Amino acid sequence: MNKKELIEQIQLKKSFLCVGLDTDIKKIPKHLLELEDPIFEFNRQIIDATHDLCVAYKPNLAFYESLGYKGLISLEKTVKYIPQNCFTIADAKRGDIGNTSAMYARTFFEYYNFDSVTVAPYMGEDSVKPFLDFKDKWVILLALTSNEGAKDFQQCKVIDVRGISTEKMFETVIETSMKWGDDDNMMYVVGATKAESLTKIRKIIPDHFLLVPGIGAQGGSLDDVWKFGHNDDCGLLVNASRNIIYASAGEDFAEKAREEAMKLQQGMKILLES
Amino acid sequence: MNKKELIEQIQLKKSFLCVGLDTDIKKIPKHLLELEDPIFEFNRQIIDATHDLCVAYKPNLAFYESLGYKGLISLEKTVKYIPQNCFTIADAKRGDIGNTSAMYARTFFEYYNFDSVTVAPYMGEDSVKPFLDFKDKWVILLALTSNEGAKDFQQCKVIDVRGISTEKMFETVIETSMKWGDDDNMMYVVGATKAESLTKIRKIIPDHFLLVPGIGAQGGSLDDVWKFGHNDDCGLLVNASRNIIYASAGEDFAEKAREEAMKLQQGMKILLES
Repeated sequence: MNKKELIEQIQLKKSFLCVGLDTDIKKIPKHLLELEDPIFEFNRQIIDATHDLCVAYKPNLAFYESLGYKGLISLEKTVKYIPQNCFTIADAKRGDIGNTSAMYARTFFEYYNFDSVTVAPYMGEDSVKPFLDFKDKWVILLALTSNEGAKDFQQCKVIDVRGISTEKMFETVIETSMKWGDDDNMMYVVGATKAESLTKIRKIIPDHFLLVPGIGAQGGSLDDVWKFGHNDDCGLLVNASRNIIYASAGEDFAEKAREEAMKLQQGMKILLES
Repeated sequence: MNKKELIEQIQLKKSFLCVGLDTDIKKIPKHLLELEDPIFEFNRQIIDATHDLCVAYKPNLAFYESLGYKGLISLEKTVKYIPQNCFTIADAKRGDIGNTSAMYARTFFEYYNFDSVTVAPYMGEDSVKPFLDFKDKWVILLALTSNEGAKDFQQCKVIDVRGISTEKMFETVIETSMKWGDDDNMMYVVGATKAESLTKIRKIIPDHFLLVPGIGAQGGSLDDVWKFGHNDDCGLLVNASRNIIYASAGEDFAEKAREEAMKLQQGMKILLES
């Protein structure tokens, strides 16, 4: 999916919601466990209940990998089941030397046919570039994450290799990496718990989409993310995982997930029309 | 495997060689492609031919994932096949928010039963700590990698959150993260192509093991790595992948792999006895 198509979906659905499929075999409703593929069945029902309210789905690879090859089969079926008009994100946080990153890119873009993959920046340009060689596919690079540990390195004051001082490591990451691609093939992860930093980030990259996790279970505010982070194209994909997919542990889990997704979508509709 | 056992194996085998299992379906000998599981069959023969010459095996996850769930089956069989007296490294470069890193830790330490996993530091303490909760299991944290892109962020001059200036980002990563664990459950990745930096790194962490990729295909020198990087316990695992496992593309691939592994092991024996 390219940028124009993504923006069209946001306008059509009045939503910039991404539903995180952090599907945990220990948390899904018990009645699904008797089925042949409980993880896929859970995802299928979540997707059926939410696909008109969200513009993206983000399976978190860790949850599928923890079940070994069977989890990967569930993932494969899930990605195929997601409607064509939804943007897909492999939340995998990969990044390695060039020939290995190229292999990861083929995995997520060719084998699974995801639209995008989250990538960790620590190993630099040649670890990210192989992901940018695919038409209408995206790198979503970690910039400022939503977790407590973001302070350890991302918030360090930095003088980069050109001798240019920026306030923080995550700004150096954005300023350096934005030259590797453009706003048609790169997005950045910026946590909702760091909404005040969005103003600074928007000065560096006014046109890029941002993937914003941290709404809900992690405590971020949708209104703040919009206030500091949106641009003329909307420019935001706001992710919610646990508070949608685990809204109920009973047989009504999909219905309750829809209710939670709708609350967020209704809030987004107001912001988009404001 | 704990540190004492690893050191015993190094002394017994007169080797600190790690064989990287970057097993690529496009590069393995053609005659294997007719078999049911060519990837596992290749690995099995490589392991049979080298296990007395090396102390560790490092499957690179990207290569297995690129084949979807079938690649993961090959990986699972490979890890089970590696002899108990060899240290196993999941070269996965994971790292995510706490609950997700915990899931990755269970994947690699419980499901696959690897001894260790490579972890990317960008997301900080709570992205690394969940991997340190497993007895006799190891985090191998990226510090200074062997690739060109290492200069982009790892070599940035940094002032950390305490206001303390260090020369380079990778030093801040080591100094900060060494407090999260100890030399019984953490190692660091330092590329052989950056051997001169090993002197500095050894001043910060004299006792930790270092995993050193970049010998062979990437151009690093074994003698330099030893000179600047060894400690009284040896303290090094030097990885070679492509130049061992792809030494021949014919039916003699395992025999040729053994020859290449033996060249390295013989060099290591001299260094260990020096």
